[in-house]
Amino acid sequence: MAVSQTRQQPGTSVAIVGLGLIGGSLGLTLREAGYRITGFARRPAVRRRALDLGAVDVAVAELREVVDAEIIVLAVPVLATQAVLQHLAPHLTSGTVVTDVASTKTQILAWAADLLPASAHFVGGHPMAGKETAGIDHAESTLFRGRTWCIVAPDHTPPEAVAGVTQLATATGALPLTIDALTHDAAVAATSHVPFLAATALADASFTRSEWPSLRPLASTGLRDTTRLASGDALMHRDICVSNRTAILQQLDHFMERLAAFATLIREQDDEQLLAHFERLRTERDRFVAYLDTRRNT
Amino acid sequence: MAVSQTRQQPGTSVAIVGLGLIGGSLGLTLREAGYRITGFARRPAVRRRALDLGAVDVAVAELREVVDAEIIVLAVPVLATQAVLQHLAPHLTSGTVVTDVASTKTQILAWAADLLPASAHFVGGHPMAGKETAGIDHAESTLFRGRTWCIVAPDHTPPEAVAGVTQLATATGALPLTIDALTHDAAVAATSHVPFLAATALADASFTRSEWPSLRPLASTGLRDTTRLASGDALMHRDICVSNRTAILQQLDHFMERLAAFATLIREQDDEQLLAHFERLRTERDRFVAYLDTRRNT
Repeated sequence: MAVSQTRQQPGTSVAIVGLGLIGGSLGLTLREAGYRITGFARRPAVRRRALDLGAVDVAVAELREVVDAEIIVLAVPVLATQAVLQHLAPHLTSGTVVTDVASTKTQILAWAADLLPASAHFVGGHPMAGKETAGIDHAESTLFRGRTWCIVAPDHTPPEAVAGVTQLATATGALPLTIDALTHDAAVAATSHVPFLAATALADASFTRSEWPSLRPLASTGLRDTTRLASGDALMHRDICVSNRTAILQQLDHFMERLAAFATLIREQDDEQLLAHFERLRTERDRFVAYLDTRRNT
Repeated sequence: MAVSQTRQQPGTSVAIVGLGLIGGSLGLTLREAGYRITGFARRPAVRRRALDLGAVDVAVAELREVVDAEIIVLAVPVLATQAVLQHLAPHLTSGTVVTDVASTKTQILAWAADLLPASAHFVGGHPMAGKETAGIDHAESTLFRGRTWCIVAPDHTPPEAVAGVTQLATATGALPLTIDALTHDAAVAATSHVPFLAATALADASFTRSEWPSLRPLASTGLRDTTRLASGDALMHRDICVSNRTAILQQLDHFMERLAAFATLIREQDDEQLLAHFERLRTERDRFVAYLDTRRNT
């Protein structure tokens, strides 16, 4: 096994529940960093693929076989997390740290508080990495490099549990960020969930119209890129909407107010204001892209 | 000069008014196809650059010097087209064909009917190609390859005038599409103008909030791609909004209805419907991308 520079906790045993894009990528990168990885997946083909790719040291078919790990990472869809917590709870060893990679945090923390025994420690996690392509076949060991990894620890979580999850995030090349659940959920509503809904509504407003076949030859890269997120995992996004209703509805209102403001300027022929807004937002967007490039290259 | 396979009308003289991204790219590709190109640009640096790049045979500093060309292509921002038509009108030779590359057609055709003498023939044109980067430095001779080039001819336009513009479009590698002005303007509102407004409103709803500095570390490629169009030419998009108000406001309403429908499903916890919509729109979006890929490779 190669000894990498990011090696933090050689030999720490980690179990990953769910070997999709995120779980598979996590296994690849953590094994390179010296962790011992047990992976759980229901489907035999996924377990075989995880072993072939080197994403896990051991692949197990029974959920309860993951409980001996020092850290258990839940990498299943948001709503499935509840059932997995329920199944694991009675079998957990005292001191086990449980974390997750789900896109919303308030709901997950509430389930963990509800279901896990006091002797286990839950630390919410969320790596800001993904692709439209799902499944272990698209796993990459560099998926998390330069990305923010949110760490959301409930009050009274022992510092060593938080430190363990933070080290695991760091070992993937991600940049850990401690944040509270409400701030996290509002932020991802703005940066990820409402952009997905906008992409999907643009797809709906164009592709499903009866006139679409005659409009289609006029469509090009603009519509392709603004609708990209609509090709993402439908179940994951449904779960996100279900588990982050309040923050999403608030940000969706805010977005629709901005659209309505543009409609008003166009209708009232306030062409100067329209130009000023477009110029200002072009500058802000270019600044954001420069920020992303800087992070990706650090 | 290389003789290319798309060579159609060797020796036809074309004048291009405005040597930005589109005008410059058009010069490059038409020269390769055997046309003789006169280019007009106000700024001396742009004229020099056009000559250096080989985008024009001759660069002229006076607008009236373009009138001897058989076809005059207007490649200036939408609202500037009116002033250029006004300046050219008194100097046009009988039989000259005038065309354009602007993003909206109803307004342009009205100006042309208003301003040009009956002895000149206007044929509206719109290549569906562009980038966020503006200016001749970004010109590419392959910019139009596989793209639709809309041809919008007013009633009673002589067939040879339409044929000349169609051959010019074909010579760039584009796919000419004859379409009426109202259908064109409704189509581009759906495929291009409202996606731009959505990208810009997403930028507004995120980047200009006071909380943005604390949200920013959670943003990634999703927000980058859905806001890409907001980095486009602000003046061009302002002109588009001004010259295509009706169609844009209609499509914007339609888009906001789709967003409101998603908000209702989320609020009323109709999670089954939400999943069904997301799955259907993912399929439609994947189908659209496959269509674009097929065209680009033809």
